[in-house]
Amino acid sequence: MDYNAESLALHAKSVGKIEVVSKVAIGTRDDLSLAYTPGVAQPCREISDVKDEVYRYTAKGNLVAVVTDGTAVLGLGDIGPEAAMPVMEGKAILFKEFADVDAFPICLATCDVDEIVQSVKMIAPTFGGINLEDISAPRCVEIEERLKAELDIPVFHDDQHGTAIVVAAALINALKVVGKELADIRVVVNGAGAAGGAIIKMLLDLGVTDILACDKSGLLREGDAENPPHLEALARKTNRGKRTGDLADAMVGSDVFIGVSAGNVVSKEMVASMNPGAVVFAMANPTPEIMPDDARAAGAAVVGSGRSDFPNQVNNVLAFPGIFRGALDARAGEINPAMTLAAAYAIAGIIGEDELSAEYVIPDALDRRVGRQVADAVKQAAYESGAAIRK
Amino acid sequence: MDYNAESLALHAKSVGKIEVVSKVAIGTRDDLSLAYTPGVAQPCREISDVKDEVYRYTAKGNLVAVVTDGTAVLGLGDIGPEAAMPVMEGKAILFKEFADVDAFPICLATCDVDEIVQSVKMIAPTFGGINLEDISAPRCVEIEERLKAELDIPVFHDDQHGTAIVVAAALINALKVVGKELADIRVVVNGAGAAGGAIIKMLLDLGVTDILACDKSGLLREGDAENPPHLEALARKTNRGKRTGDLADAMVGSDVFIGVSAGNVVSKEMVASMNPGAVVFAMANPTPEIMPDDARAAGAAVVGSGRSDFPNQVNNVLAFPGIFRGALDARAGEINPAMTLAAAYAIAGIIGEDELSAEYVIPDALDRRVGRQVADAVKQAAYESGAAIRK
Repeated sequence: MDYNAESLALHAKSVGKIEVVSKVAIGTRDDLSLAYTPGVAQPCREISDVKDEVYRYTAKGNLVAVVTDGTAVLGLGDIGPEAAMPVMEGKAILFKEFADVDAFPICLATCDVDEIVQSVKMIAPTFGGINLEDISAPRCVEIEERLKAELDIPVFHDDQHGTAIVVAAALINALKVVGKELADIRVVVNGAGAAGGAIIKMLLDLGVTDILACDKSGLLREGDAENPPHLEALARKTNRGKRTGDLADAMVGSDVFIGVSAGNVVSKEMVASMNPGAVVFAMANPTPEIMPDDARAAGAAVVGSGRSDFPNQVNNVLAFPGIFRGALDARAGEINPAMTLAAAYAIAGIIGEDELSAEYVIPDALDRRVGRQVADAVKQAAYESGAAIRK
Repeated sequence: MDYNAESLALHAKSVGKIEVVSKVAIGTRDDLSLAYTPGVAQPCREISDVKDEVYRYTAKGNLVAVVTDGTAVLGLGDIGPEAAMPVMEGKAILFKEFADVDAFPICLATCDVDEIVQSVKMIAPTFGGINLEDISAPRCVEIEERLKAELDIPVFHDDQHGTAIVVAAALINALKVVGKELADIRVVVNGAGAAGGAIIKMLLDLGVTDILACDKSGLLREGDAENPPHLEALARKTNRGKRTGDLADAMVGSDVFIGVSAGNVVSKEMVASMNPGAVVFAMANPTPEIMPDDARAAGAAVVGSGRSDFPNQVNNVLAFPGIFRGALDARAGEINPAMTLAAAYAIAGIIGEDELSAEYVIPDALDRRVGRQVADAVKQAAYESGAAIRK
């Protein structure tokens, strides 16, 4: 199938992908008097008296804004808010399809961090949660942190945490296949952007202690004078031996490679230099750091990528719908590490021990069980971690 | 029916009134590859190359933001953005029901004019039009004017122009019933807020020349030292004889009374002092300036109000869905006076000469013909007046 041509035809035929419909009937005069004036005044009064009643009488508690400034859309880069709209609409319909969340695109006419934060704060009364999307690094990290601090609804940058959650799930299952423990492995993370940073934090939360992070200049190292602040923060959490060297050096004797960088930066020789039972997740899109077949040929025991035409596709759709479903169901004030960890274990747990194999460590993107199980686990974690406002 | 209790139950049962659904299927891996990655990159590229293609490949061209700051909600006043949400959702479902417009509530966490203007500008890339709603006067006039000047999509404050359009339609038909001409009548408008101001402008556009405007202090008069700037502007367009007096003085010998003020401010005696064939539209909610039965008893030939339990209900739902449908279909850059006039004549035209009567000068709020006929007339007017970008 020619995805480009077919996708254009689909988008032109339907003129976009979302529509806003009514959950109540408006066929009669009485319908109109209840859904609109004069009856609608009563829910307004109740919310005016007790603001929290907005969750009882309006759609707010199930509405998520999919917010972008269009600066880092897919692999296309800074294409602006209008051109980002097809992706945001796509995200919105996946939210609905996999977790019955009503998501709506908000494409912002600014790339300024302050203006983005301000705009999202202004529109927040309508929404039960904010999903940040395709905002370039490192701005995205600051924007998420500021909004988390200022809003009382969950704020989640999917490009950071969605990817981290699915990789974590894949890793949990891959280690079962190769018979290793999280506490014993050395992981090399290549790519120190927003996703790389979130993956490293997630690995630490999982109990991984030996992490080497690389970017284009090689191994990150605490105290390196050339580190900008956000990389120094990552360096401090990784490379405890303060080693120097490039990606090839880092991979020698490692157990897991996680790539969120660029195509074709890993050779067969580099994979062959890893420990036996090596795990390779090469997620650069559309061309992985190393093609899955090459990684297998070089001796990797478990291989995953971002591609749907190879086994073990790392696809964020496994995470974000259920994450928000669970957070909204719990009326969580935030999405905290306990909730993202719970999501990772829930995704991993979809695959039973008897089904697990080197070619099946990640559930299929269309597996309908995932959204509900992730939601339940996240909701439970929200309660246990104190993030939930409503029980 | 107890509208308050029933409406609360309805809102609680459905948990709000809107949902965001997909127009395309996502059942298979191919569906996912076309609606989302990798296929979705192609419409993104096309829009990135030619921004206008956003109208071809996304929902933007059919999306309207229903924007409020919650400062003037129904008759409830400044109840805040959360408490305004039930009304905005109600508006959204009426847009969909009567004109297939996909409308979405945006309730803003600010009452500051600059912040409101800025927020709407920021979110504008998502939308094909902006409907301002329940924003208090006179701020609403400035907000609308600034947004009209700064955005290239239609901006429409329904509380001003929606009411004006339906009153104009009612007046056109009422004059046929009483056998008078627009150019010959004296109209008294009581209430010089946002709706009153818009009604006066609309009357002038219709060709009415003799208008007396009143507020709580009585007749507006050009040069009155106590006029704030927005009232001086209205005074300059009305009361050419520079008369002084109160509402009772103004109504003596007038042909039409239009009330957008407060309940029970007009007596039977005041209606009796009007010319024969008097027309009374008393639209204060929920209690009209004079109850319709009293106005009739005092000699008014045609009477309308905002209430659904009397004949001739002035209901904005007759205007805003079709107005936006027509503006969006024409890809109008604005909603101009030619388009609002066309809407008024289209609403009036729904009622044939043979059906017209004192008790039927305004179509029923549920009349399904109205949305389409208003849309067609507005679209045509957009073309003829040069407001349309797309033909």
